[in-house]
Amino acid sequence: MKILTNITSPEAIKSLSIEELKVLSSEIRELIIEVMSKNGGHLASNLGSVELTLALHYVFNSPLDKFIFDTSHQIYTHKIVTGRKDLFPTIRKFQGLSGFASPTESIHDHFYAGHAGTGLSLGLGVAKTRDLQKEDSYVIPILSDAPLACGLTLEALNHIPKDLKKFILILNDNGMAISHGVGTIHNDILGKFTSPDKPKKETETFFDQFHLKYLGPVDGHNLADLITLLLKAKASDQPVIVHALTIKGCGMPKAYEDPITYHGVKPFDPESGKFHPSPLSKETFPKIFGKQVLKMANEDPSLIAITPAMPGGSCLDAFMETYPDRCIDVGIAEGHAVTFAGGLAYGGMQKVICSIYATFFQRALDNLFQDVALQNLPVVFALDRAGLSPSDGTTHHGIFDISFLTAIPNVVVAQPRDGDLLKDLLESCFQWNKPACIRYPNMTTEETGREIIERDLGKGEILIKGKDVVIIALGHMCKCAHEVRNILLESNIEATIVDPIFIKPLDTNLLFQLMLDHHYFVTIEEHAVYAGLGMCVNSFVMQSGFSDIQVQNFGLPDQFIEHGSYESLMKEAGLTPEKIAKAILERFSLKQGASAREKHWNLS
Amino acid sequence: MKILTNITSPEAIKSLSIEELKVLSSEIRELIIEVMSKNGGHLASNLGSVELTLALHYVFNSPLDKFIFDTSHQIYTHKIVTGRKDLFPTIRKFQGLSGFASPTESIHDHFYAGHAGTGLSLGLGVAKTRDLQKEDSYVIPILSDAPLACGLTLEALNHIPKDLKKFILILNDNGMAISHGVGTIHNDILGKFTSPDKPKKETETFFDQFHLKYLGPVDGHNLADLITLLLKAKASDQPVIVHALTIKGCGMPKAYEDPITYHGVKPFDPESGKFHPSPLSKETFPKIFGKQVLKMANEDPSLIAITPAMPGGSCLDAFMETYPDRCIDVGIAEGHAVTFAGGLAYGGMQKVICSIYATFFQRALDNLFQDVALQNLPVVFALDRAGLSPSDGTTHHGIFDISFLTAIPNVVVAQPRDGDLLKDLLESCFQWNKPACIRYPNMTTEETGREIIERDLGKGEILIKGKDVVIIALGHMCKCAHEVRNILLESNIEATIVDPIFIKPLDTNLLFQLMLDHHYFVTIEEHAVYAGLGMCVNSFVMQSGFSDIQVQNFGLPDQFIEHGSYESLMKEAGLTPEKIAKAILERFSLKQGASAREKHWNLS
Repeated sequence: MKILTNITSPEAIKSLSIEELKVLSSEIRELIIEVMSKNGGHLASNLGSVELTLALHYVFNSPLDKFIFDTSHQIYTHKIVTGRKDLFPTIRKFQGLSGFASPTESIHDHFYAGHAGTGLSLGLGVAKTRDLQKEDSYVIPILSDAPLACGLTLEALNHIPKDLKKFILILNDNGMAISHGVGTIHNDILGKFTSPDKPKKETETFFDQFHLKYLGPVDGHNLADLITLLLKAKASDQPVIVHALTIKGCGMPKAYEDPITYHGVKPFDPESGKFHPSPLSKETFPKIFGKQVLKMANEDPSLIAITPAMPGGSCLDAFMETYPDRCIDVGIAEGHAVTFAGGLAYGGMQKVICSIYATFFQRALDNLFQDVALQNLPVVFALDRAGLSPSDGTTHHGIFDISFLTAIPNVVVAQPRDGDLLKDLLESCFQWNKPACIRYPNMTTEETGREIIERDLGKGEILIKGKDVVIIALGHMCKCAHEVRNILLESNIEATIVDPIFIKPLDTNLLFQLMLDHHYFVTIEEHAVYAGLGMCVNSFVMQSGFSDIQVQNFGLPDQFIEHGSYESLMKEAGLTPEKIAKAILERFSLKQGASAREKHWNLS
Repeated sequence: MKILTNITSPEAIKSLSIEELKVLSSEIRELIIEVMSKNGGHLASNLGSVELTLALHYVFNSPLDKFIFDTSHQIYTHKIVTGRKDLFPTIRKFQGLSGFASPTESIHDHFYAGHAGTGLSLGLGVAKTRDLQKEDSYVIPILSDAPLACGLTLEALNHIPKDLKKFILILNDNGMAISHGVGTIHNDILGKFTSPDKPKKETETFFDQFHLKYLGPVDGHNLADLITLLLKAKASDQPVIVHALTIKGCGMPKAYEDPITYHGVKPFDPESGKFHPSPLSKETFPKIFGKQVLKMANEDPSLIAITPAMPGGSCLDAFMETYPDRCIDVGIAEGHAVTFAGGLAYGGMQKVICSIYATFFQRALDNLFQDVALQNLPVVFALDRAGLSPSDGTTHHGIFDISFLTAIPNVVVAQPRDGDLLKDLLESCFQWNKPACIRYPNMTTEETGREIIERDLGKGEILIKGKDVVIIALGHMCKCAHEVRNILLESNIEATIVDPIFIKPLDTNLLFQLMLDHHYFVTIEEHAVYAGLGMCVNSFVMQSGFSDIQVQNFGLPDQFIEHGSYESLMKEAGLTPEKIAKAILERFSLKQGASAREKHWNLS
């Protein structure tokens, strides 16, 4: 790592020869593979963008010239050469470097990213400011090919001023999203390249329409060519797109051969590229979802599933392979995914399932509102990655969705506590005849294989009956509730545990019954505390007319949450059984027994 | 109205001659002008689409063939000829016809619309279902030119299958959004047409890229030409776009000359086209916003404003005229508007104001989340049309936004009760150094011209001090609170009225103080009741540790609300001073005086 050792800032790159840059590329690849083999992370896309990033730093002056990474799946080399190489082994770890662009880490990162398609729009804003303030610098949004087809990118493309100067869009075209690319822009306009020597007329025309002078395509691994073309872009007096063809997984045979598997990796053996055998034998919620949906699709030809670019992550790949016509990847286009689903349901498909990560559903709120809920179409939304996304962090946590989902009339919001219940809900949800959101985390869970139980809309369950306090726990947090109960038992407090299953409609009958003989209620959820289940329970209790019920809410604090291990994040948020039990004991003064309790609440 | 009398279903159109269709067009225009002159509504766009709609019904068989109206600003003729002409005079009235597409009204309306850009995506869903189920019909999304550049439309455009049959996109190109069209697709790709005889190569190429066979342009007011071209489209074995050039306001000189003013009209004189003099001398919130922002822009060159296609409605037109470089219309692209605003704020513009209708902000939640709030950029969002949009109805009410705005960390949410306070907030908000949403309705309000008061973040106000009940009223509902207070005084109940000003951060210090000597709290808001201020107050009170506080929430019910006069909608929702006062008296049994009250709440 001789050359890399001296790269403490991007300035140092400028004095290197092409040969030295090549060596540096190898050293960076080695570092990325080594760290990813331990930490896991976005491997294939970062291996594909080493030379491109070095060439950019060679030609431009960051941070004066602004590299705006879209999605930032491809930012590792940039992090390594902008003073963060020593911290690189901490990437995606608690209090370590973020796996995505992070302005708090470095002046070389300008915007948070993670949700795709924002780079061009942000870049236009930065460039407009620069021009109004008569500053002089380059604005350089860096996109991969998949985010190019996001609605947001296309909206921005439509607004590139003809006379905009020093604006260079870098298209890092590796021909893929996380999975295979889809859509006309990918398939026909960018086309499937075989050689960088063949510029396609269609590609040029497409960008030309939007005032972007097309430069390329260029071999994204040829440093000399990249630098030459970037210098040409730099000299242009109109907005430019530089089209670099890169290869996902470049430099690591396993990742090169299977870039889908090696897009986001768990730890692996750096020599062989083989993944360590998983210590977990249990299934995860997404896997159970995938299996169950395939089973239902086998039985019912009117079932159709939609995924916005996440067939693998959502475990719909087997379905897609079996029924390519009934499992549709629409690319990174969450809005279209949901509105299209509305069209399918209206058209007459009996079972339309749209699988979207909870955090990305923030992009389709209006589509849910107007194109599904308003018409009360029975589309089922499988909100994957609901809850914390530990290593991905801030942009990826699915912890705000309950707020807007419960705000919209007609929409059902449910969360299963285990794999069995997830299957129950999937088998039952089309009976409810309403848009239904079923949220679940990417987490191992129990699946006993018991018979399906048909679940009535809005029916919760008492998991264990006590008498002193009711713990209402959302989804997998029911497990935590059992542990809290055990701790409370040591103080002779017997908790009743309720799985509401439905956040909306809330099982108010059940709560009402419990309010007759319990005065203390606790809610536990892995969601922003003042935007979720707790708030719904608070409001129900407050409007119920009971005057002596107290509710204590546990959830994630009202702040953005960084990345880290699940355990460290939950601990920091106070969402461990020990902390919750302690807080219950304190707040309710239950430690002192019944008489003190009554005194505390003036119930005597 | 001889011909129109017999048009009780679209079938009847098919037997008419071209000459008769022309007469029918005139009769329909007359009816539209007559009804709009009384009811107000979308005038210019509907006058422009009479012939096109008739030609569509002449050639296709609705409802088997599915006309999917995007936005549906242009649906009146369709309503008139699909059995709703007798009800047409009730349009936009309480319990009358909706001004937009409405599936509950007619089997000829398939989807709700109002928010732009959904037609193509919905159409693809319907067509996919048709093909999977081997049905035979045409799917015909009908778009105007402005929604063509929505991100959602572009996402769908990218996913039109090459081999899709019987799919005909109708582009009703009147060259405008509500205001002037903007963006490259409008300016260059569709181009400014002077004559329908000149097809533009660029236009054809653009659609061709996305597998749409281009037919046109055709004079959208020439019935014979339209029918000929639609028959050609009908016979095509690939997906087609029919490009019809229409003229907003066609057939009414005033509307033709000034289609912006006559896009959405208030009642006017049908002969002269002149608007009735407004009986209101007071200013509206949007007008005060527009004036204030212009004043601030005069004083500060680093103030910039963005509007997604609403310069007129948002009262930014004077600003735009004065400083075209600092007031930017990005077209119907709410996502881009917000992300672009993030770019501007990061770039260094000190005061970035993004004006968006509250209901349309549902399209930019994720942009607010990642591109503004995560980075804590001090962009100010002016959420116009917050609250009911009476005549527009279901799709346009801005009554759900508080749910998701308050869920996102860092975001300030405020609402002024009058024009003076709106100006205070606008002058103060950039001091808070956070993303701030200032919501206000399109409603007349007081503006005394008093000096600006600098408003501290999260500081509410006691408007009048009482002792028995605290009424927390949001924005203009403070007026209602005063009336409620007067009614309660008749029962010897003295209410304290609080204007929280901020929904987030809530003035918890103020509430805490009031909780020391009040036990009864009431919240009043013109927002979905379980997704707004009331819920925030409930949760604060519940977590405060006080055990004897009761809160009663008044707001809009958890259901979609139709159109109608403001008064009728508020009455139906129970949001009149009388109904609120009555409910307070009942719930709190305050009528019986203090002793009964104590007994009721076991406070003795």
